[in-house]
Amino acid sequence: MKKIKWAIMGTGTIAKNFAKGLQSLEDAELYAVASRSIASAIQFGQNYEAQKYYGSYEEMVRDSEVDVVYIATPNSAHKDNILLCLNHNKPVLCEKPFTLNVKETQEVIRVAREKNVFLMEGMWSRFFPIMQKVQEWIDADLIGPIRMVTADFGFRREGEPEERKISLHRAGGALMDVGIYPISFASWVLKKEPICIKGVASLYETGVDELSAMIFQYESGQLAVLSCSINTPTVKEARIIGNKGSIVIPDFAKATSATLSIIGEEPVTITIPLEGNGYNYEAAEVMSCLRENKTESNIMPLSETLSIMASMDELRRQWGIVFPTENQA
Amino acid sequence: MKKIKWAIMGTGTIAKNFAKGLQSLEDAELYAVASRSIASAIQFGQNYEAQKYYGSYEEMVRDSEVDVVYIATPNSAHKDNILLCLNHNKPVLCEKPFTLNVKETQEVIRVAREKNVFLMEGMWSRFFPIMQKVQEWIDADLIGPIRMVTADFGFRREGEPEERKISLHRAGGALMDVGIYPISFASWVLKKEPICIKGVASLYETGVDELSAMIFQYESGQLAVLSCSINTPTVKEARIIGNKGSIVIPDFAKATSATLSIIGEEPVTITIPLEGNGYNYEAAEVMSCLRENKTESNIMPLSETLSIMASMDELRRQWGIVFPTENQA
Repeated sequence: MKKIKWAIMGTGTIAKNFAKGLQSLEDAELYAVASRSIASAIQFGQNYEAQKYYGSYEEMVRDSEVDVVYIATPNSAHKDNILLCLNHNKPVLCEKPFTLNVKETQEVIRVAREKNVFLMEGMWSRFFPIMQKVQEWIDADLIGPIRMVTADFGFRREGEPEERKISLHRAGGALMDVGIYPISFASWVLKKEPICIKGVASLYETGVDELSAMIFQYESGQLAVLSCSINTPTVKEARIIGNKGSIVIPDFAKATSATLSIIGEEPVTITIPLEGNGYNYEAAEVMSCLRENKTESNIMPLSETLSIMASMDELRRQWGIVFPTENQA
Repeated sequence: MKKIKWAIMGTGTIAKNFAKGLQSLEDAELYAVASRSIASAIQFGQNYEAQKYYGSYEEMVRDSEVDVVYIATPNSAHKDNILLCLNHNKPVLCEKPFTLNVKETQEVIRVAREKNVFLMEGMWSRFFPIMQKVQEWIDADLIGPIRMVTADFGFRREGEPEERKISLHRAGGALMDVGIYPISFASWVLKKEPICIKGVASLYETGVDELSAMIFQYESGQLAVLSCSINTPTVKEARIIGNKGSIVIPDFAKATSATLSIIGEEPVTITIPLEGNGYNYEAAEVMSCLRENKTESNIMPLSETLSIMASMDELRRQWGIVFPTENQA
């Protein structure tokens, strides 16, 4: 099988993680790396054995050898970076948060569909093997009809917070950085859009949210109770509660195990260790789609990315958070 | 020490539990029981060895031997029952929910203060010994400044729901039945009123809430994430999250253990079994106050009962739930 040639845009921590992830995929090759700084591109490219190093994104997308681009640039650059790739007919996997708002997401989806080019949000943990197990439990009706989903992702770092996490200009904050995980998780479990969204957020002095809680209601009466923080060591757990039992996923945003508790039965815990560092799973999904000439993933479809972004827009509206760099209606 | 003579108003399950609780207190005596049905009063009184059985509440409160009344009547009767006792200068412990709304709570507090008679809400689990341990951990700053409180109380009963739990006329629903536990817990931990309350609720066909989620925000940026249900088997856990660690209380509404997790240290679990069936603790607090001639408990003060009721009013306002029997502004 011909190897698929990846290019990575950006050279930060997550770009490095993704490059490592590709190394565990036989049919993937890290072909090129692009940075606004050629020095960064060279260093990254040498470390991860890329063939090509580009000091500009524009040069990279003109390389006809590039099969697909992984975008790992700052949040506020995603939309322009995606458009650049699509306009050069390059399939795109873009790190979450996909763009800054619904308008930007609509724009890139429109272009992807016009160009008939593959586009996917890089919600990496959705593709982990344990999530398939959880889906099987749900599909087998082991916990009965789902009534409530809870999910939390918060962390605390000692010392000063990272500038990009708290910068309003760079579209930081808990919601954009980690809140998207619980929101995406609820969407993945319930497979529909909320009819009512309410949130409260405590804001950092820079104007981004540092600790947030969100409650979503769905047409059939289901609820999602979600929370996130960039300065609080919260539980990082997800829970799917049905009439007959529940599924608990510890560290759900990077999950390798899940516990099924059916009322009246002993709980069962399944652990499925990662092969590779975890980033390989989303990359494998992208390559599988490309080999099948699909322009969207069934697991992370664009309509769902748009719906998740709409929830985030509504929360920011309630919290009065506007990013200076976002392209508004 | 002279025994304190209790009268119990109502003969339902919780009245029975309370009568059992009194049996484990040396200085307490179940003196009288009152029901609207003399037959019920006699049966209850004989089972729990009361001296007097009354077929009306009015007769009971005129008995000069009664030192204090425990009210375990339906929610919608609490206000009138409290007023009847206070107007006969009988100290009162009233089962939660204390009354149906703020207006009713304000009225009974006003009368208690005018009459200078003891009055307390029967939030029984607040008085459990493990809660003192949790308070010690918080006071010793072991988890650092508190950032978030989560608490959930939901259950599912097989078969048809109990009529009183789902009746709008009887002021049923998840919020009034069990939602008060997480709300009271957050109040107990944070010792202040929320500045913002948002809730979503799924309503039963009778018009009461069956599954609800609530998020509270406090002046210092703290959040509470609370949920409750009368038809969903949720986690029933409370969690207090600070900057340096967290405290988890399983089955927090009837807790006998708690786990302290300080970041970087091994978690420590403390278990303090109940002496008696648990109802004895709130009864002991009432008797301690009476012996000290106090008209309020420091652990469950009336100002806090009022604040909790205000939160519940606001939630019902958001959900459009009005009880036909409640005395509104």
